[in-house]
Amino acid sequence: MIDTAYTELSSVLEGRLTRSKSELDQHGLSETWFPPTPPEAVAYPETTAEVSEIMKICHAHGIPVTAFGAGTSLEGQTLATSGGLLVDFSRMNQVLRVNDADMDAVVQPGITREALNVELRNTGLMFPVDPGANASLGGMAMTRASGTTAVKYGTMKENVTGLEVVLADGKIIRTGSRARKSAAGYDLTSLFVGSEGTLGLITEMTVRLHGQPEAISAAVCSFEEIGPAVEAVIATIQVGLPMARIEFLDAESVHAVNLYSGANFPLKPHLFVEFHGSEATVAEQVEMFGEIVHDFGGSDFEWAAKSEDRTALWTMRHHAYWACLALRKGTKAVVTDICVPISKLAEAVEQTRADIAASPLHGPILGHVGDGNFHAILLVDPNDEAEIKEGKRLAHRMAERALALGGTITGEHGIGMGKKSLMPEEHGAAWDLMGQIKAAMDPKNILNPGKLVP
Amino acid sequence: MIDTAYTELSSVLEGRLTRSKSELDQHGLSETWFPPTPPEAVAYPETTAEVSEIMKICHAHGIPVTAFGAGTSLEGQTLATSGGLLVDFSRMNQVLRVNDADMDAVVQPGITREALNVELRNTGLMFPVDPGANASLGGMAMTRASGTTAVKYGTMKENVTGLEVVLADGKIIRTGSRARKSAAGYDLTSLFVGSEGTLGLITEMTVRLHGQPEAISAAVCSFEEIGPAVEAVIATIQVGLPMARIEFLDAESVHAVNLYSGANFPLKPHLFVEFHGSEATVAEQVEMFGEIVHDFGGSDFEWAAKSEDRTALWTMRHHAYWACLALRKGTKAVVTDICVPISKLAEAVEQTRADIAASPLHGPILGHVGDGNFHAILLVDPNDEAEIKEGKRLAHRMAERALALGGTITGEHGIGMGKKSLMPEEHGAAWDLMGQIKAAMDPKNILNPGKLVP
Ligand SMILES: Cc1cc2nc3c(=O)[nH]c(=O)nc-3n(C[C@H](O)[C@H](O)[C@H](O)COP(=O)(O)OP(=O)(O)OC[C@H]3O[C@@H](n4cnc5c(N)ncnc54)[C@H](O)[C@@H]3O)c2cc1C
Ligand SMILES: Cc1cc2nc3c(=O)[nH]c(=O)nc-3n(C[C@H](O)[C@H](O)[C@H](O)COP(=O)(O)OP(=O)(O)OC[C@H]3O[C@@H](n4cnc5c(N)ncnc54)[C@H](O)[C@@H]3O)c2cc1C
Repeated sequence: MIDTAYTELSSVLEGRLTRSKSELDQHGLSETWFPPTPPEAVAYPETTAEVSEIMKICHAHGIPVTAFGAGTSLEGQTLATSGGLLVDFSRMNQVLRVNDADMDAVVQPGITREALNVELRNTGLMFPVDPGANASLGGMAMTRASGTTAVKYGTMKENVTGLEVVLADGKIIRTGSRARKSAAGYDLTSLFVGSEGTLGLITEMTVRLHGQPEAISAAVCSFEEIGPAVEAVIATIQVGLPMARIEFLDAESVHAVNLYSGANFPLKPHLFVEFHGSEATVAEQVEMFGEIVHDFGGSDFEWAAKSEDRTALWTMRHHAYWACLALRKGTKAVVTDICVPISKLAEAVEQTRADIAASPLHGPILGHVGDGNFHAILLVDPNDEAEIKEGKRLAHRMAERALALGGTITGEHGIGMGKKSLMPEEHGAAWDLMGQIKAAMDPKNILNPGKLVP
Repeated sequence: MIDTAYTELSSVLEGRLTRSKSELDQHGLSETWFPPTPPEAVAYPETTAEVSEIMKICHAHGIPVTAFGAGTSLEGQTLATSGGLLVDFSRMNQVLRVNDADMDAVVQPGITREALNVELRNTGLMFPVDPGANASLGGMAMTRASGTTAVKYGTMKENVTGLEVVLADGKIIRTGSRARKSAAGYDLTSLFVGSEGTLGLITEMTVRLHGQPEAISAAVCSFEEIGPAVEAVIATIQVGLPMARIEFLDAESVHAVNLYSGANFPLKPHLFVEFHGSEATVAEQVEMFGEIVHDFGGSDFEWAAKSEDRTALWTMRHHAYWACLALRKGTKAVVTDICVPISKLAEAVEQTRADIAASPLHGPILGHVGDGNFHAILLVDPNDEAEIKEGKRLAHRMAERALALGGTITGEHGIGMGKKSLMPEEHGAAWDLMGQIKAAMDPKNILNPGKLVP
């Protein structure tokens, strides 16, 4: 299909268009159980104007276009399931402007969160959204990513304030402003954030920055049972204690982390926590949290006082996904991602644990419990149909439970292909409305076709 | 036009449909300079099902439908400029559910913010968004309202988490969930919030609640000049001091407030501030703020220690609009509402002050400066074309300045009819995209036609 437009595209991209098998294959992989699905060609644009030209050509020829950031999304979002062109944003990775005084930055979408934070190191500012993986800002915006720090700093929804977007027909628009708030018409920024590349391609974005905390304190504590661990989190949230991170790992996840990272945590449910603030407020928060943990029968804290110890701790947490996969050789994951109202969190985690216990599959549970969000990493042999089916059955049960409890089927990973079948259950007729909006904005259905919408 | 559908509508509404002249006239008024524009009929639905029936009938007959909350919006948003039916939500004003544990509430859109807070009084929770006027929650959502407390608690954008909406054809959808975050598809909640009744009618909403602060401290201080007053605000924001309110009033506004509310403030630029938190954090914040004010040459504080004193203070502030109008008999206002990045605030306020000084009109300036948002209340004789023209000229200059500084033409009041002509300047091609979305969701253009979109 791409043949018709290949010459036109290569004249725009001057050598940055490829059909090399290795590059196609590399862009056809997914981090989870989806089968490899290479695109027909990969483009590496360097400017907004090039992206606009790409879209004009693909629009004219009806060629599917899938955007690619760092490729770490978990629901097959970057797989070119209808073939066509994959647009890799890795060369549009510059910080264009940092406004210290207003605490925002204008960046290109291909920059990764780690690279951005390296650039910010001497400004006293940081970009806090942290999905563990070293994802691109564009990809994070498009999955409405969050991660360990969302409980304090918000998700990409709260931290993207403006976009430059190339629409399906190549038109370039800007959304948002650098003001802190606006009532000037429809909130297009929020419409694009979370749209998984189905409505337009981000070529520039304005993001909120936050002050690097004066003091940071991180710690680990364990509980005898899941229930009290989660109840302690609920209590912490309900008293309004401003945690910067509060992560739950069940005994199975702890086991995986011990093996993978050479740690030595007791095989019990754990909380990994972090506080940010002034010396005085952090001390106050630590004390309050200590009392709550004590009330719920938790262990004493193990403190990560030094910066290296904290880095080691969060690296372990960030590697937990790989640690789980390493529990069994050749395994892939059906990753779940439910998010429920805080008051329902203990119920949701415990029932999920019980479901998995009754299944032949392994499924460590861990998550960003301060938001009511957790994952079971359901380990399956990708060549075993029955295991994949069982993984999907468990995932489906979790999603239905989340909905019954007033929650959502995905707190942060998005829909892609993996969760489409659950969209009618969560949204009913509102899913059709999403389809109508998609049809209005991309009538030829060339932007990441097959993902998210009906 | 309504005649064709009148019988059908009245059979749905059982006596809650009226064409009485007094009720039409009352619903045809605006708080600002727009000429009275009564609708053809007013409906008072009591249930979602009735709203759905209303929309089905109006859709079939192509009758324009304008929603009405409390009618306090400032850009003519509720004026039935194309005739048709006005849907008054005042009878859908119940609190349906308060979830203490998750700090949210489900309410009908007609409830006012004051009524909601009365209902919440004994829960320890509150709904903080405060536009001064006793607006309805539905109207506030639809203008993306904010007000004095947004600097700490956010605007309606941050505080509406889910909606039930009746679409143009009568279909009922639900958006959002009760989870704290979600990545499940397009953010329809955010699309509706701020859409001014042009995409659908809200029949139910889930809103975030916040804990009533343990300690509150409010104070007033004055400055010799506008510049240092605003610079003090900028410094406060930049050090990250969490103000609950920080309001600016220039000397003209202070004069108006003195006359209207019998106060006795010196005729200088003022800041009205409030801090919320624990006893300890409030004390710490007050001290830090005191130092900043001192650095910028501000006066000592006058404290409103008692709850009655605070109420009196904020009532004065909330009545400031009426106080300005009272400066000159028979006057109406062209209300401006720009919002700029914090670093540009002093520049924006001072240049606006200079513009007004060079004009024959009076225009007190005041605003929610913690967000970079302020208003000049340009006083005009509604029967004097030349004055209205001059008011609009000044307003236009302010809006252009806001855009040049990276800001927005409206921080919180919205577009309605009043700011439509500025939309292309702020949004360029993105305004056309808004129009496309509108056309997809309301192809017959019956929902508040003539407002917001091209
Ligand atoms: C070990 C591990 C842990 C993870 N933990 C978390 C977590 O805690 N929280 C969380 O939220 N996620 C997590 N994820 C998922 C993943 O990191 C996020 O989904 C992330 O946002 C994806 O970013 P990316 O740059 O890799 O995007 P990609 O995977 O490249 O793309 C994601 C989507 O965005 C689109 N896209 C990318 N760039 C653009 C652009 N410029 N314009 C338009 N569309 C674009 C793509 O088409 C695709 O639909 C984890 C993943 C891994 C592997
Ligand atoms: C003295 C004064 C001070 C003010 N100060 C502020 C301020 O500080 N900050 C601020 O943000 N605003 C302020 N305003 C403006 C006003 O209060 C806000 O715009 C408010 O949000 C309007 O709410 P309302 O209930 O009066 O809505 P209305 O004026 O009745 O309607 C507003 C819009 O919402 C639509 N609408 C209403 N209900 C529904 C529904 N159920 N479904 C769909 N659409 C609906 C209407 O069609 C209209 O487009 C002030 C106004 C006054 C008079």
